Amino acid sequence: MTKDTSNQMWGGRFAAGPDAIMEAINASIGYDQRMAAQDIEGSRAHAAMLAKTGILTDSDAEAIREGLLTVLSEIETGNFEFSAALEDIHMNVEARLKEIIGEPAGRLHTGRSRNDQVATDFKLWVRDQIDAAIQGISALIRAFVAQAEVGADWVMPGFTHLQTAQPVTWGHHMMAYVEMLGRDLSRFQDARARMNESPLGAAALAGTSFPIDREMTAKALRFDRPAANSLDAVADRDFALEFLSASSICAMHLSRFAEELVIWSSAQFRFVTLSDRFSTGSSIMPQKKNPDAAELIRAKIGRIFGANTALLMVMKGLPLTYSKDMQEDKEQVFDAADNLMLALAAMEGMVKDMTANRDSLEAAAGSGFSTATDLADWLVRALNMPFRDAHHVTGTLVAMAEARGCDLPDLTLEDMKSVHSAITADVFDVLGVHNSVASRLSYGGTAPERVREQIARWKEVL
Amino acid sequence: MTKDTSNQMWGGRFAAGPDAIMEAINASIGYDQRMAAQDIEGSRAHAAMLAKTGILTDSDAEAIREGLLTVLSEIETGNFEFSAALEDIHMNVEARLKEIIGEPAGRLHTGRSRNDQVATDFKLWVRDQIDAAIQGISALIRAFVAQAEVGADWVMPGFTHLQTAQPVTWGHHMMAYVEMLGRDLSRFQDARARMNESPLGAAALAGTSFPIDREMTAKALRFDRPAANSLDAVADRDFALEFLSASSICAMHLSRFAEELVIWSSAQFRFVTLSDRFSTGSSIMPQKKNPDAAELIRAKIGRIFGANTALLMVMKGLPLTYSKDMQEDKEQVFDAADNLMLALAAMEGMVKDMTANRDSLEAAAGSGFSTATDLADWLVRALNMPFRDAHHVTGTLVAMAEARGCDLPDLTLEDMKSVHSAITADVFDVLGVHNSVASRLSYGGTAPERVREQIARWKEVL
Amino acid sequence: MTKDTSNQMWGGRFAAGPDAIMEAINASIGYDQRMAAQDIEGSRAHAAMLAKTGILTDSDAEAIREGLLTVLSEIETGNFEFSAALEDIHMNVEARLKEIIGEPAGRLHTGRSRNDQVATDFKLWVRDQIDAAIQGISALIRAFVAQAEVGADWVMPGFTHLQTAQPVTWGHHMMAYVEMLGRDLSRFQDARARMNESPLGAAALAGTSFPIDREMTAKALRFDRPAANSLDAVADRDFALEFLSASSICAMHLSRFAEELVIWSSAQFRFVTLSDRFSTGSSIMPQKKNPDAAELIRAKIGRIFGANTALLMVMKGLPLTYSKDMQEDKEQVFDAADNLMLALAAMEGMVKDMTANRDSLEAAAGSGFSTATDLADWLVRALNMPFRDAHHVTGTLVAMAEARGCDLPDLTLEDMKSVHSAITADVFDVLGVHNSVASRLSYGGTAPERVREQIARWKEVL
Amino acid sequence: MTKDTSNQMWGGRFAAGPDAIMEAINASIGYDQRMAAQDIEGSRAHAAMLAKTGILTDSDAEAIREGLLTVLSEIETGNFEFSAALEDIHMNVEARLKEIIGEPAGRLHTGRSRNDQVATDFKLWVRDQIDAAIQGISALIRAFVAQAEVGADWVMPGFTHLQTAQPVTWGHHMMAYVEMLGRDLSRFQDARARMNESPLGAAALAGTSFPIDREMTAKALRFDRPAANSLDAVADRDFALEFLSASSICAMHLSRFAEELVIWSSAQFRFVTLSDRFSTGSSIMPQKKNPDAAELIRAKIGRIFGANTALLMVMKGLPLTYSKDMQEDKEQVFDAADNLMLALAAMEGMVKDMTANRDSLEAAAGSGFSTATDLADWLVRALNMPFRDAHHVTGTLVAMAEARGCDLPDLTLEDMKSVHSAITADVFDVLGVHNSVASRLSYGGTAPERVREQIARWKEVL
Repeated sequence: MTKDTSNQMWGGRFAAGPDAIMEAINASIGYDQRMAAQDIEGSRAHAAMLAKTGILTDSDAEAIREGLLTVLSEIETGNFEFSAALEDIHMNVEARLKEIIGEPAGRLHTGRSRNDQVATDFKLWVRDQIDAAIQGISALIRAFVAQAEVGADWVMPGFTHLQTAQPVTWGHHMMAYVEMLGRDLSRFQDARARMNESPLGAAALAGTSFPIDREMTAKALRFDRPAANSLDAVADRDFALEFLSASSICAMHLSRFAEELVIWSSAQFRFVTLSDRFSTGSSIMPQKKNPDAAELIRAKIGRIFGANTALLMVMKGLPLTYSKDMQEDKEQVFDAADNLMLALAAMEGMVKDMTANRDSLEAAAGSGFSTATDLADWLVRALNMPFRDAHHVTGTLVAMAEARGCDLPDLTLEDMKSVHSAITADVFDVLGVHNSVASRLSYGGTAPERVREQIARWKEVL
Repeated sequence: MTKDTSNQMWGGRFAAGPDAIMEAINASIGYDQRMAAQDIEGSRAHAAMLAKTGILTDSDAEAIREGLLTVLSEIETGNFEFSAALEDIHMNVEARLKEIIGEPAGRLHTGRSRNDQVATDFKLWVRDQIDAAIQGISALIRAFVAQAEVGADWVMPGFTHLQTAQPVTWGHHMMAYVEMLGRDLSRFQDARARMNESPLGAAALAGTSFPIDREMTAKALRFDRPAANSLDAVADRDFALEFLSASSICAMHLSRFAEELVIWSSAQFRFVTLSDRFSTGSSIMPQKKNPDAAELIRAKIGRIFGANTALLMVMKGLPLTYSKDMQEDKEQVFDAADNLMLALAAMEGMVKDMTANRDSLEAAAGSGFSTATDLADWLVRALNMPFRDAHHVTGTLVAMAEARGCDLPDLTLEDMKSVHSAITADVFDVLGVHNSVASRLSYGGTAPERVREQIARWKEVL
Repeated sequence: MTKDTSNQMWGGRFAAGPDAIMEAINASIGYDQRMAAQDIEGSRAHAAMLAKTGILTDSDAEAIREGLLTVLSEIETGNFEFSAALEDIHMNVEARLKEIIGEPAGRLHTGRSRNDQVATDFKLWVRDQIDAAIQGISALIRAFVAQAEVGADWVMPGFTHLQTAQPVTWGHHMMAYVEMLGRDLSRFQDARARMNESPLGAAALAGTSFPIDREMTAKALRFDRPAANSLDAVADRDFALEFLSASSICAMHLSRFAEELVIWSSAQFRFVTLSDRFSTGSSIMPQKKNPDAAELIRAKIGRIFGANTALLMVMKGLPLTYSKDMQEDKEQVFDAADNLMLALAAMEGMVKDMTANRDSLEAAAGSGFSTATDLADWLVRALNMPFRDAHHVTGTLVAMAEARGCDLPDLTLEDMKSVHSAITADVFDVLGVHNSVASRLSYGGTAPERVREQIARWKEVL
Repeated sequence: MTKDTSNQMWGGRFAAGPDAIMEAINASIGYDQRMAAQDIEGSRAHAAMLAKTGILTDSDAEAIREGLLTVLSEIETGNFEFSAALEDIHMNVEARLKEIIGEPAGRLHTGRSRNDQVATDFKLWVRDQIDAAIQGISALIRAFVAQAEVGADWVMPGFTHLQTAQPVTWGHHMMAYVEMLGRDLSRFQDARARMNESPLGAAALAGTSFPIDREMTAKALRFDRPAANSLDAVADRDFALEFLSASSICAMHLSRFAEELVIWSSAQFRFVTLSDRFSTGSSIMPQKKNPDAAELIRAKIGRIFGANTALLMVMKGLPLTYSKDMQEDKEQVFDAADNLMLALAAMEGMVKDMTANRDSLEAAAGSGFSTATDLADWLVRALNMPFRDAHHVTGTLVAMAEARGCDLPDLTLEDMKSVHSAITADVFDVLGVHNSVASRLSYGGTAPERVREQIARWKEVL
């Protein structure tokens, strides 16, 4: 039976059907059935065009288009039996169509091939995922902006090397992720514009001698134009690779905030409290409240970039045009897309639900000589000291404070003067964390005023 | 209900159950049910040990062990309902056990934790896959040896840069893959020996105060010994990474032969004919016979190394001990293992079924001045010429033959003497491809005699 | 001395200088000296702005700007001694500036930090490379277009699975790479637009209290605008990652044509002859002419994507803002950029120099039942047969020809009629390769007419 | 001149020398000169064998062997001029040898080729690096063991999810890394044993007709045996890939401890103090003491695995035997090896120099309900409660303590009884951290006694 089916597909040439191992390695129906809607949409557009150009009769085309809707409905309602012997979604759909409408089904494949058909289906699928990514990122941006708005002037430590460097505002930190995600957004938008060309009608690879109208099918499928070279159209998987590259960079951004959440949730930091909804307990340690969602999101970059690695490796060195190696494209992209969307949604949920512990943040912001830079800048401004000298004086004062176990504002004016005699009491104005952040008014700086401008700008953009 | 179940698992602390997104990102039951047999085997060993050490009563242990067999049988016969709310295979099994045997089920988790349980399950699963890889590789080696035996003295071109370099024997070429696969074999064997330490009893991370006997459970599960540090035991995924590394290198070997098969099957080469069983046709081009299986095998390296990339990236920079990130280990290894086994089986089938086209191989072996090196070596041996000079003389003769559109044996002795007067008619003895391969008697060389020795050696090994 | 220098840099706090291992792992001057011109350009822009905003006196700024030119000239002429103790290019330049102009040098670092300085330098460097990539790709496109123009109507086999599928034109095949490279071009252009925001003035991370003008420095350095968030500005390496992603995809395209060149140069294919300039010989086989440049280009994808892997892995999970891990960004990008530019240039040279062997191509195009699709299409068109039935009839005829050892046009009309009685002599019109390609007139198809339109379009674009 | 040199190398066939781009992409002398010592050692062994087997005269061999020592000495003292026109280290050495000793130099290349020569050189180089890695890892193990010895009974929090789970001992945590590094050690040892076969004498690919003695050269170069298949011997790069795989896993281990050091050095944790030798300051924030070395080590995994990715991608799908793609192997391995050795040395230095802050560790160990598991275990042991019930009771008590803002030992017996009436005052014995760790006596557990046993075991091993 397998043999018969196979012969039916490939014509009369083959003496033996593929055996079980071959079917296992060759059949894609196990996963490419996810493209059923795209496949049917593409076929319906193709049929309409074949009628319009006189290649099919209107009645045949109508039968095909109606029959395809029936198939789609069977699939959507779970009443479709997929057959591995029929290899892929394209043949499964066409075989069922034939059962439903008979002979005209055999006319659908005129002027196209599985090569352009699969490229079209997959492009439509990836395009949907790009749209989903854009939505997911936008929602996450809104969640960060909301957090930024609440704590635009809350102070927290700004870290480099996970060491306290300078006080910053909570809002400013949240808005840093908005910038990253904003670039992700534009990266997906660019990828979408670049990939939005229709492969349909490239046929196997050379184009076709039937008088097809590729503009018409492109338009029907909301592509900007038909792809300009039929060899390239069936050999190209750039759109999948670019989706994976953009997804990898986006996942990297998520991994950075996830890492911060894990660290900030520790008993030692206590910067944030995650909601119970995004935490879990332990089977043996009842006191644990684990930031599981953050950890899982942190891990997603591996999976997504693993898919990128896989597909690029697959494409390496493939001669034109289609090689069966390229069938390994879909599972990678499916898995990466699913996980990116999941990570975006989970991160959005966590960001919405999390509570910043304002007091812990402020206490941490003020410790660790965090306003040393403010002191150095004051020396430059007030005493016209070269920056490098001011830096040295500040270092000496920090060492003095550290030796005494106190912080910079706890030093007396006399202590200060013992290091540099021109220092005046005015210096104490810059040593408080709120003064510090308020003073950083340069464009893009951490001052609440600047942060609120950025919030406003982003609210307008979205 | 989700909330209740969750509370049941994590104790009374949580005010809210995880919502849908959290469940989607957190639950592993969708894939870790593949480790059901390993999970139950581990739990049965654990229960037996708890009884032996007096931590459980014999009757409780017996009830548990019997109940677990019932659960296993339910799973194996498809009569088990997996619940995502119960997160993973461990909790699903334990919850069902409780339904079957009641209170004693709650005593099974004494002296262990999900952390050591999952590490044990996963190690057992990976160990099985290592054994499967060893079997698959051995079978493939046998297929190559069989091909080598048939054509131990058939001649074919030996290529560098895909340019004909020197004639070699078909058997020699086949045996090159045997060497590669032999290293794969030993790599998996080493990995197996290194990973074969039992995590069971490491508990959450610190060990336990119950007087458990880790030697006993290790022995029952056919581990060589218990892992020596409980923190490491639950934080370690080296065994998975090493499996993926060894699989990646093995897949690379497969990709090389797959590439050769694709090239050799082309109309231009015609070095081999693949069986219909491992080829497919085209939906639009009835004359095609495509080496699909070879192409799919060539692609598998991407997927397997993608998994390696994913997991190493996940593990990067994780503080001790268990972090939820590590839950991303299983799907990667499952997918890589499935695809490695499939690729090995398909390659074995193809190698067994393929037919070398002896005439095409021999014709190709003799063209392209393939015995130029033999000529150069003759000049060194017979005329005591320094190799570099012999190389130059040979180059001049090749250029002469090329200009005349003939091959080296077609030059006359006079032609030869015009380039170097000391050349004698004996030179023609080395210009035939059969003489050429027969002369390469150095250890590991291509002479049929040497090839047959290697075949004999490998037949003994296997 | 190392200790002193170090103390001089970091202020008075440290009791001990870094020892040799630390210097080896920490110092970046060994490679970041490649950014000397960018560093000095950035500093000169910064100094001019400090003067304009009154933070520096005009004379100090002038001294700094002139002194920096002196330093640049010393570096460019090889008269600069780089010091590992001074760690990086920034400190090396500033230290030398101080030797030349004295005290004002210490004022240059006002209102900035090494964090924004290195981000600025590196962005400028990467932007230059993007421009270089755009140039290199454009030149390569021109080389492919030139090849396409010469052989717009030459026929060759169009392959899928490296099996002859249908005849195509040489020009069409060349133009497929033009499409790929065209996407590369637009990918680099998008990346350039996205990354062209100035980090300068983000200072360490929080912005600064000095009244700096970030618009002014942005404009001076030809950035479109200042980056909008100071934390993000110093923590961001998206621009490097996106460069590597785009480079990886471009390298993949190159690897595909490189593979084709290697196969096409084989004795079995002889589709092209590479120039001696891009081939090499063998030390032992004088007759060899190896496509080394093609092979090396094929390999470059590994190196470039290896850099992508490296940097993404480095960035994974880094908390904000700057962490020293990020210092590992430069060598990866330097190496990838160097190798991409080299690969593009070598490929351009090879494409320009290579000769297509028109006769071999045409002979190959006509063999292997390559017009079977044309036959099937004829059956559909002329006999109104459903495509699937036409496919079956064609398959039977191919099998008949294969059994007789002849090609499709060699069958008699009677042979044809024995399979399907309605076939007429007209069928022989479509079985010739030139007729075949000429008939594929669909948009993007392989007909010479269509190919020439695409050539014209691209000539206009470039 | 380039042309002449090139012609000299490749014989008389080439009409044109490679131009500048070709030389840039083709020449490897810029980096493979690092294998000079290995190249000369290999050639000396080859010459000795050629004499022993009568292929060379003793005097020629002696001249060659002495001349090679002269070349080596010139290279080692920096008195050697490398030439890119001569492409690689092999030709550079041989050309110089010819200048020194004249005609016999041309006889050295008898019975070998660049293909087996480069494989031999590179294997020797990689083998040296494996030995260096084994030394570096051993030294690092000793540093961890020393730390473990000092603090075998110090308590600290054991983390999962970076949440305090249970108290563990500092010694136990240190010894976890010893286990990881121990596996690294055995992985490199296995790799060394597997790769230690000599390619020398495989010649270009087919073996040779000269009566060479491959056992003799193998022995002279301390290989275990000659490689058994000449095609495989020149086509194999498994040894490099396995080195990179083992290095990647080792770098992953280093990244985990590096991450811990970064977190532990934060103001919020203060678990360790790194020495000034392995920290750096900030150019703008004088108070900073940054864990730069730890961060750089954390990043090294990217670079090392990037090299692994690169080389595996290069090797994918290469037909036998040597292809020029394989020349991309060396820079990847050189860079990875350099960085692994540097990371090991820097980590060893940091571990030796670092100071654990015993008080901070102990304070952290006692907070966060860290002995909840001990409480649960007590309920199981003392009250014979099923574990799952004990877990629930403990969870309720933790919730009570959390609500009151106190820790578990601060609850009164009455509080306890209000949750479960059978609890007795004995429970308080298990709530202290020292009692907790002392009780975990299971094999591999955290009890100081167990830790000291492991320390003793490792001291014996090393």
